[in-house]
Amino acid sequence: MTATIAPPLTDVAEIVAPDQVIDTPTMVVDETILQTNIDEMQSVASSFGVALRPHIKTHKSARIALRQIAAGAVGITCAKLGEAEAMVADANGGITDVLIAFPTIGEPKIKRLLALMERARVIVGVDSREAAAQLSAAMAAEDRRLEVYIEVDTGQHRSGILAGSAAVELGFEIARMPGLRLIGVFSHEGHANTQPKETIAAVATAAGEALVETAEELRRHGVGIEVVSVGSTPAAAITPAVRGVTEMRPGTYVFRDTAGFRYGIFGPERCAARVVATVVSHAAPDRCIVDAGAKTLSLDKGPGHPGHGYIVGHPGAIIHALSEEHGWVQIPDDDPGFAIGDRVEIIPNHICPAINLHDELVIVRDGHVIDTWPVTARGKIR
Amino acid sequence: MTATIAPPLTDVAEIVAPDQVIDTPTMVVDETILQTNIDEMQSVASSFGVALRPHIKTHKSARIALRQIAAGAVGITCAKLGEAEAMVADANGGITDVLIAFPTIGEPKIKRLLALMERARVIVGVDSREAAAQLSAAMAAEDRRLEVYIEVDTGQHRSGILAGSAAVELGFEIARMPGLRLIGVFSHEGHANTQPKETIAAVATAAGEALVETAEELRRHGVGIEVVSVGSTPAAAITPAVRGVTEMRPGTYVFRDTAGFRYGIFGPERCAARVVATVVSHAAPDRCIVDAGAKTLSLDKGPGHPGHGYIVGHPGAIIHALSEEHGWVQIPDDDPGFAIGDRVEIIPNHICPAINLHDELVIVRDGHVIDTWPVTARGKIR
Repeated sequence: MTATIAPPLTDVAEIVAPDQVIDTPTMVVDETILQTNIDEMQSVASSFGVALRPHIKTHKSARIALRQIAAGAVGITCAKLGEAEAMVADANGGITDVLIAFPTIGEPKIKRLLALMERARVIVGVDSREAAAQLSAAMAAEDRRLEVYIEVDTGQHRSGILAGSAAVELGFEIARMPGLRLIGVFSHEGHANTQPKETIAAVATAAGEALVETAEELRRHGVGIEVVSVGSTPAAAITPAVRGVTEMRPGTYVFRDTAGFRYGIFGPERCAARVVATVVSHAAPDRCIVDAGAKTLSLDKGPGHPGHGYIVGHPGAIIHALSEEHGWVQIPDDDPGFAIGDRVEIIPNHICPAINLHDELVIVRDGHVIDTWPVTARGKIR
Repeated sequence: MTATIAPPLTDVAEIVAPDQVIDTPTMVVDETILQTNIDEMQSVASSFGVALRPHIKTHKSARIALRQIAAGAVGITCAKLGEAEAMVADANGGITDVLIAFPTIGEPKIKRLLALMERARVIVGVDSREAAAQLSAAMAAEDRRLEVYIEVDTGQHRSGILAGSAAVELGFEIARMPGLRLIGVFSHEGHANTQPKETIAAVATAAGEALVETAEELRRHGVGIEVVSVGSTPAAAITPAVRGVTEMRPGTYVFRDTAGFRYGIFGPERCAARVVATVVSHAAPDRCIVDAGAKTLSLDKGPGHPGHGYIVGHPGAIIHALSEEHGWVQIPDDDPGFAIGDRVEIIPNHICPAINLHDELVIVRDGHVIDTWPVTARGKIR
């Protein structure tokens, strides 16, 4: 597949809510593309024979999580406990199985964790004996048992304990701790995303193999690891194929963003979420300002399109800088041009942090607004 | 003054809410530093004999705006109409004079603007005849009159019409438009902030002079410009001193951030807003992870401390990368070190976008929580 320049999701001038013209800037989501992306990733997981536990950090929407579960996902992955609480509460019993893939530390959080365990199955990631010991003591005191995955560092060097002997040693300790049940290991292959195209597959495969080997070593010593779970959309066609992997946790696939343009993996036609913005200032022919800045698109430039997002229909225009409210657009000579009041659709370069800036998603089907969904877990940083 | 390494606002382990240990990450604001910053900038404005109309983009809090007004501010400046609506609504009659310093374009916004004008004096910035014509038509149709400032580009080249003949010509046109009353010109000296120390004063002064000259030229032709309004905290000691300036609109001063460390203007002791975070992972001696990432600190690196924020008490530690939930910390050899569960205070490099990520501010006095204030205008991007 090569990157193609797709037509806009819709002639944005025609996005009309029942009683008013939609205001800008607004995050719109095309329902058809969304559902295609959900179904396709479920097929990928099924073809590999692994469970799909999507990371909700991308959409933060209970409505979308329920669609992922309806399509076959076994549960969801959240970053923070607060996201898990919001998703479970907003789904009215529809979300019953949650992994919190972030160290959960300190008394206030453990208290909230105990409450959440009354409402759903909760698995917590741990990467240190200190965190595990805190959880163990709290669970044992309440006569509860918490399922945990060990977070393993397979090359990203963010959080996670190093794959191999360090992880295995931590596994032995956790397996002996009261109040905990060690059932899995997990990793995130974020470092594969920053590779040149030629080496992505090798790096993503090596990461999966290191995780599987860690699980095998624990099993050889009698620790019953059931789940070997890998993350990341860019490596979703590679790491889950490693023999021994049982679960995958991609997130971005649900909307996609310009990261996929880079290697010609897909074009705008697969990007479900877009910011509709207005040209508000146009002081010189070669530049204009749109009303979507860092508070709307986020400053995360991602590895995709140059600048801060792709303006549909204006492939050469570059959003070269963002102030909080201003998107600074450089207009090339051969561009059809912009006029004050024009509406544009912008595909963010990294969709996840952009979604976190919005309270709601306006859902579009065939160019018409059909619904508004809250961003359930927006801002749930704790 | 030289940059100093101040002690933390408080021993963060002692920040205790009445019934629980405060959870992390949380944005805390020291009330004493806050009030000092408010009072000091009011004194600066008074000493120059100019009106202070602070930009609320930094705090987005009606409570803080009311303190600024109590100290002598003539009104507030907002970026988006939605911020103005939220501030006026939340202040229960305490905010009655608002400048919207952003082009306000399109039917939905103009309808909202008309409604807001029933509740407060509203001035709107314009930088194009297209925007002015839309406003004029809508106001004339309702037999209303909207006060406007022309936004003038004095060197930043973002929005704004070029100072001099272009701005003057636009002024003539607007002065003839029904439904509008042109009362001022305004600029933002953002470009002065990026100068080397030696040239800041010259650039900030030239910007103010260009704005004053534009106002004078309009007056020479009978357009009654009453207000000459300049922006930006870094230039707050310079541009408002230019003869002919009548109003200043700094924003960041209320909290301040590490931008002031750069030239030794002040140290952490003047920074009122800080993120309290927890060390959650510590896989190697030279690095650890805190639970404040891009969703908490924002990715805006600003011109101040290296990386993404200053960790109080750890001047050599660098937050060298941010994932959405993870702050990646490089620990130098001579640092006292971090342990899992430790709490740290982080001063963001650019406080404004960081505040926009938080729903509330926890207010601290003498190291104890005294209140929680909502971030009234968070996420009001429209």
